[in-house]
Amino acid sequence: MTTTSLPGFRDFYPADLALRAHIFRTWRAVASRYGFVEYDGPPLESLDLYTRKSGEEIVGQLYGFTDQGGREVALRPEMTPTFARMVAARAGGLPKPIKWFSVPQLFRYERPQKGRLREHFQLNLDIVGETSVASDVEVVAAAVDMLREFGLGAADFVARYSDRGLISAVLQEMGIPEASLPAAFAALDKADRESEEWVIERLVDARIEPDSARRVLDLTGMDLGDLSRQFGDVAAVGECLVRLNRFREQIEAAGLEDFVELDLRLVRGLAYYTGLVFEIWDRKGKFRAICGGGRYDDLLEAVGGPALPALGFGMGDVVLGELLRDRDLVPEGGHELDDFVIHVSDEQLPAALHIVHSLRARGRRVGFDYRSRSVGRQFKVANQAGAARVIVVGPEEVERDECMVRSMDTGEEVKMGLAELLAGSD
Amino acid sequence: MTTTSLPGFRDFYPADLALRAHIFRTWRAVASRYGFVEYDGPPLESLDLYTRKSGEEIVGQLYGFTDQGGREVALRPEMTPTFARMVAARAGGLPKPIKWFSVPQLFRYERPQKGRLREHFQLNLDIVGETSVASDVEVVAAAVDMLREFGLGAADFVARYSDRGLISAVLQEMGIPEASLPAAFAALDKADRESEEWVIERLVDARIEPDSARRVLDLTGMDLGDLSRQFGDVAAVGECLVRLNRFREQIEAAGLEDFVELDLRLVRGLAYYTGLVFEIWDRKGKFRAICGGGRYDDLLEAVGGPALPALGFGMGDVVLGELLRDRDLVPEGGHELDDFVIHVSDEQLPAALHIVHSLRARGRRVGFDYRSRSVGRQFKVANQAGAARVIVVGPEEVERDECMVRSMDTGEEVKMGLAELLAGSD
Repeated sequence: MTTTSLPGFRDFYPADLALRAHIFRTWRAVASRYGFVEYDGPPLESLDLYTRKSGEEIVGQLYGFTDQGGREVALRPEMTPTFARMVAARAGGLPKPIKWFSVPQLFRYERPQKGRLREHFQLNLDIVGETSVASDVEVVAAAVDMLREFGLGAADFVARYSDRGLISAVLQEMGIPEASLPAAFAALDKADRESEEWVIERLVDARIEPDSARRVLDLTGMDLGDLSRQFGDVAAVGECLVRLNRFREQIEAAGLEDFVELDLRLVRGLAYYTGLVFEIWDRKGKFRAICGGGRYDDLLEAVGGPALPALGFGMGDVVLGELLRDRDLVPEGGHELDDFVIHVSDEQLPAALHIVHSLRARGRRVGFDYRSRSVGRQFKVANQAGAARVIVVGPEEVERDECMVRSMDTGEEVKMGLAELLAGSD
Repeated sequence: MTTTSLPGFRDFYPADLALRAHIFRTWRAVASRYGFVEYDGPPLESLDLYTRKSGEEIVGQLYGFTDQGGREVALRPEMTPTFARMVAARAGGLPKPIKWFSVPQLFRYERPQKGRLREHFQLNLDIVGETSVASDVEVVAAAVDMLREFGLGAADFVARYSDRGLISAVLQEMGIPEASLPAAFAALDKADRESEEWVIERLVDARIEPDSARRVLDLTGMDLGDLSRQFGDVAAVGECLVRLNRFREQIEAAGLEDFVELDLRLVRGLAYYTGLVFEIWDRKGKFRAICGGGRYDDLLEAVGGPALPALGFGMGDVVLGELLRDRDLVPEGGHELDDFVIHVSDEQLPAALHIVHSLRARGRRVGFDYRSRSVGRQFKVANQAGAARVIVVGPEEVERDECMVRSMDTGEEVKMGLAELLAGSD
């Protein structure tokens, strides 16, 4: 029998699952503080849901197959197409803005590597039907507050943001044709990892003149002041600058200025972003991006959904889990049991069961020994299970409707009537 | 754009997800009261993990395919093979008994029908390394207490149990060859839905003499007294009877006698059960079985895992959800927001944001209007979101570091300093 999972897939033993549950719980808690509600879709969808958005090239990374009914299907590689489909199905009836989040497991056939497996869980959080700067701030703030909730601080991570709309407007002002913009963004996205020559080559490949390509590359060295001086009186650029100022103002009002930095070199590779883009990185640059997202005002309509503006982000569990482990922010397991009920011999098992189930009915986590072993052995088991309290039931106790209660922290023992025990366990 | 999911797959819009989350939360709460810890495995596994346990015939019900690396894989149709694989990988190092549960999504290519889709979520709860009657009771009691936790009572459902070991021993005493037992169980399992002739035919098909087949069928009309009188002095039967008596005694000690009934006609169709078998049904018989399980002491070894006794059950979310809806036990959505912060005009947005984020940092669920619309409109939005409290920030309030707080239940309004507001929101 093979005892391993498929390459790139994880088994979650209880300790692994405890960390995963901690991550999910924290995501859900913060999302709900921001007024987002949870949804989910199926992990298996029609293949064309994905090829429509990402083209045929995505097929190489998909777990796709033909099902027994002859349908072309695929395990979901991302959540946005399902999200778009579900919003489209009820777009008219849903009050705007739609504020939804989900925690899907996603699947890609890629070479497994550090921080990247063939499956991962990814928080997806989106707002639909809203173009305001306040909604841009809301989405970035939610991502930042999630990381803070894990115990990470401004020394641990930073959210870098930029505005795809601003860079588009500047590129168009430089005479770059709109059709070349996606390729230009893809090239700029790699500018800090690749050589200047490489970037310029990619830009020229995208039918941008060598002279213009050089000027595009120069953009990566500019700050907001430079852009404002050179392009500030272009209307489209001016509007973006106003928006970015308001964004900054609101981030400060929210008290998040230590966590959020403008970075005009950030453009993100994906073609569909139209405004705000952002990524969260650990400050030491030791890990892949923790989170990425932005505004995609045209995407829902482009994939056949409703014509509604939207923005959101994805945050995966793999890199985040590595970071939490690295910073020693994985919570301790803690006590698995509140009480352990010891029965001195087999005859007291029914009396012990009565106590066990009465305590469980009060919401307490209670264990006992299935085999009626020695009292010493049962104390050991209670100890291993981390029980905070041990309740001993022997023949005398049964006769008097009593039990002996021992605190495992202090070692203190008291006799107690059953009614008293239960009344004190609510 | 198709806006529907694949046939037999569900979209979980927020209201649907809320019910699912309620079911998962309740399962997890009760499992942890019983000292079970959660695990999970991958939804995609090697195909042979399933054919090894269930034979090639399961392939017809699988979502199976060849992945891009040439591996034969399948979406998990059940959790037990993954569970066996994970236990096998660490069997030596895990303290016994192993008490694990999981809430996997499972996939079968079947004709979708009422209570049966192509995917469902199924609680799996198991104990490994334990043969005691107390562990049999523990598993049945956990299933019963989960249903009680949803608000279902003894008038709503019943757990029926029997002992595969007892029926085996009686059949063997009747001279039925061991090789015919699985077929005999499969036939008996259908005895209350099919005609006597049909059952006898199946038994004869399984190489049981017609005379014996008639005697086997007569078993379905017997009670424990009949069995005890006719077969009580057969050692294997006697042992089972002692076990069943102890089981009953402990169910009573646990206070669950109203929820648990012996039913010797219950055998369950699956071949691998060796002792206790049980199913939970709604009393009106309106739905499919809510839960089923039993003891499978030889299975882990048979699928190539460790030679450890085990028992457990599965409880799906589909039938349970139907039952909860039928009995009006779906919890109300309740308030989505604790607070809604209204800003009188755009100038107060930063001040409002400061309050919004200060309240969220205290764990409160807080909304505000992204568009700075009229105060009346914002009150309407606050109302729709079910906010319990509305906090109004106008120019005067900003100047004085104050806000106006209105309870949406009582309509009462009070002015409050910001420090006071935050101190009272912890």
